[in-house]
Amino acid sequence: MTVHLVDHNLSDSAVARAARVSTVGQTHKTALDGPREDSDRDAGLIGYLMRERHGSPFEHGSLTLYVEAPIFVFREWQRHRIASYNEESARYRELRPDFYLPPVDRPLVQVGKPGAYTFESGTDEQLATVDTELVAAYRAAYQAYERMLAAGIAREIARAALPVGIYSSMYVTMNPRGLMNFLSLRTHREGAAFVSHPQREIEMCAEKAEAIFADLMPVTHAAFQANGRVAP
Amino acid sequence: MTVHLVDHNLSDSAVARAARVSTVGQTHKTALDGPREDSDRDAGLIGYLMRERHGSPFEHGSLTLYVEAPIFVFREWQRHRIASYNEESARYRELRPDFYLPPVDRPLVQVGKPGAYTFESGTDEQLATVDTELVAAYRAAYQAYERMLAAGIAREIARAALPVGIYSSMYVTMNPRGLMNFLSLRTHREGAAFVSHPQREIEMCAEKAEAIFADLMPVTHAAFQANGRVAP
Amino acid sequence: MTVHLVDHNLSDSAVARAARVSTVGQTHKTALDGPREDSDRDAGLIGYLMRERHGSPFEHGSLTLYVEAPIFVFREWQRHRIASYNEESARYRELRPDFYLPPVDRPLVQVGKPGAYTFESGTDEQLATVDTELVAAYRAAYQAYERMLAAGIAREIARAALPVGIYSSMYVTMNPRGLMNFLSLRTHREGAAFVSHPQREIEMCAEKAEAIFADLMPVTHAAFQANGRVAP
Amino acid sequence: MTVHLVDHNLSDSAVARAARVSTVGQTHKTALDGPREDSDRDAGLIGYLMRERHGSPFEHGSLTLYVEAPIFVFREWQRHRIASYNEESARYRELRPDFYLPPVDRPLVQVGKPGAYTFESGTDEQLATVDTELVAAYRAAYQAYERMLAAGIAREIARAALPVGIYSSMYVTMNPRGLMNFLSLRTHREGAAFVSHPQREIEMCAEKAEAIFADLMPVTHAAFQANGRVAP
Repeated sequence: MTVHLVDHNLSDSAVARAARVSTVGQTHKTALDGPREDSDRDAGLIGYLMRERHGSPFEHGSLTLYVEAPIFVFREWQRHRIASYNEESARYRELRPDFYLPPVDRPLVQVGKPGAYTFESGTDEQLATVDTELVAAYRAAYQAYERMLAAGIAREIARAALPVGIYSSMYVTMNPRGLMNFLSLRTHREGAAFVSHPQREIEMCAEKAEAIFADLMPVTHAAFQANGRVAP
Repeated sequence: MTVHLVDHNLSDSAVARAARVSTVGQTHKTALDGPREDSDRDAGLIGYLMRERHGSPFEHGSLTLYVEAPIFVFREWQRHRIASYNEESARYRELRPDFYLPPVDRPLVQVGKPGAYTFESGTDEQLATVDTELVAAYRAAYQAYERMLAAGIAREIARAALPVGIYSSMYVTMNPRGLMNFLSLRTHREGAAFVSHPQREIEMCAEKAEAIFADLMPVTHAAFQANGRVAP
Repeated sequence: MTVHLVDHNLSDSAVARAARVSTVGQTHKTALDGPREDSDRDAGLIGYLMRERHGSPFEHGSLTLYVEAPIFVFREWQRHRIASYNEESARYRELRPDFYLPPVDRPLVQVGKPGAYTFESGTDEQLATVDTELVAAYRAAYQAYERMLAAGIAREIARAALPVGIYSSMYVTMNPRGLMNFLSLRTHREGAAFVSHPQREIEMCAEKAEAIFADLMPVTHAAFQANGRVAP
Repeated sequence: MTVHLVDHNLSDSAVARAARVSTVGQTHKTALDGPREDSDRDAGLIGYLMRERHGSPFEHGSLTLYVEAPIFVFREWQRHRIASYNEESARYRELRPDFYLPPVDRPLVQVGKPGAYTFESGTDEQLATVDTELVAAYRAAYQAYERMLAAGIAREIARAALPVGIYSSMYVTMNPRGLMNFLSLRTHREGAAFVSHPQREIEMCAEKAEAIFADLMPVTHAAFQANGRVAP
């Protein structure tokens, strides 16, 4: 799975700037050209905003990512509505035969009941079953797809045969607040204030997105983590 | 495909009531208990709101539908963000072997270039190809899925083999404005002010949703149609 | 201040119904006509959804309120974007001379620094000052407004003189999730997981809205309270 | 009124890039480092997206503006929900005595009925009435405000006296699609496909925002204008 940074205008100082309009108001315009607030004050303010759930200052900016992942991951991701998406279209183009296989360290066995599953590693035999069955199903599906296309059938019909394990690609744009909400629900990390149960595959994408976020907004990311990974 | 009405509190008079607060204001509260505005005046007001793109009065109410459709239809539907969704989970339950096959009158052949496709009926041979290939791919995928489940593999992994032509089910809730926006993009009808190119399968669902809407809000639906099927 | 129930289709059972589509799926349609789930099971499910932050099942329905409050309250309320509003228009009609005066038990004195204010009761003298000054300012503003209207000036210009303490009226529609988010930020209650600092006037409206909500969805409301008043 | 560009990452090429993922898909990643698409092809694509109402490619980026305007303008602006706001707080700080007076060329007289008003210039006497009455009301309100603050009354109470003609300040962030929607409703321009009736004061702000937008995304802006100023 791939998560690349495409474009952004994020910064910790933009959060502090937006928040200060509350208390500084019309004189703020002057401050735009004046000396920068020192970053220690910014960090204190950002921590306060996060703890007190003042979410709006975390919305002034956007992050665009290019993502390649299986359709079943995109199905979960695109349920997040405070975000913008453009995805490769299987109506407009022929999809390529790229399919998802679980990495060898992916736990394969689900234990427990809905809403409280835990996972355990599979046996070697189970891992072999997954590989064999997925590869065979993927191959059969793609061959059927190609034969339909060769027979002149429209792509949008032929694609019905394709599995949700096939890779797609998209651009996704979020603001920092929306991204933190996404991370709070799609990762399962130490220090989180509540337990989330993301599927491992979207979590792998979310972790890549989080690394990019932490690099671009280190103070905001640290405050998010310190606040139990709850979006403000 | 199935689109059932589950719950709603829609009415044409609610649109008129919300709009009149603009001009009637605080005396309106009294009007709640007074004689109803006559429906001719409501119709005139609703037509005016639609033409002038006063959208907010069309937001006070909600419609909940139960939908069964293939995953490739849900993938398009759930891109509409002014709506609420709960869908059957292939992480939590085993999906049933219900798959989509195009009806015999579904045009199968795509002509033209991206963004301006038209469709033509396929030959009998092409129709047979679609049926044969889809059924074979569906069967292979579902057998692989069942063998993985039988081997103790987690549902969320085994489902990677399942095709986007498998049926899923969901509740979707929209307000009238969101629904009209959905209809404007996902149907292709006489009288529309702009040309949309929905895939036929989501259009079949949208037509069912539109029939429910037209029944519950006949005045609003007529104004939507008269206005070129553009949401206000 | 006035908060009246205008229309709704809320119920606790609708939350449970929407959530169960995840695990029951396509067989659910049958359940619609079958025996109702017992309410104890619903309550357990709703508590689980709230704790685990499964928010989407709380979105299938809507509540429409009619509200009369001063403009400074509406200014705060309308910042909540997952909601629908129609408000009396000072462009389209002449506003009436109804103005807000703090009730005698409204604490008048602000202590502390931004973000951590507390309030204390004022002296009798301070209360008298508030009454005298507000009434005088309101009267002067309204007289100027009327003189401009009498001189033929457009309402949308003359209204610039009117204070934010003047009453306006609106319809507001929210789903239960949006309403809980609103309540979590605009009330200050025992048992809340984080401290909010709403202005007392919007809190008075929020308390009225909460009473209506608690009456219509008692199980959901109890779970919201038990969960520290954090929206799911 | 003031509308300043604070930050942005907008470009016409970002629209084309996001749109092309539909048809180019996974090979697109490579294209990021390859030769740029030529701008003529971008312009053709952007025009097509606008005409066909493919709105999502216009969402990948954000524009942050700093705005100073009277409260009655902010009241209209903040009803646009696909946007992010942080505004000067009259709970946290003392507002300054800056008030709106109509410029001499502002038409003062409203003719017609609700929803179809036109405006005409006022007489010299009417202009004098507006100036006299507004200044007197503003002065009386601000003096009452200052006396309450001097008596130790909380800012959030004392501000009830302040008129909606007082200036406030905010940061607002929008993506290009949201901005075009705002412009379509809050300006009244030649070539528009439908007639909007914005109040002149918010239109003055919208025109400033449009000039910034046209400068940053000239191709998108031209397509918006050519398409009757309807957001995609």
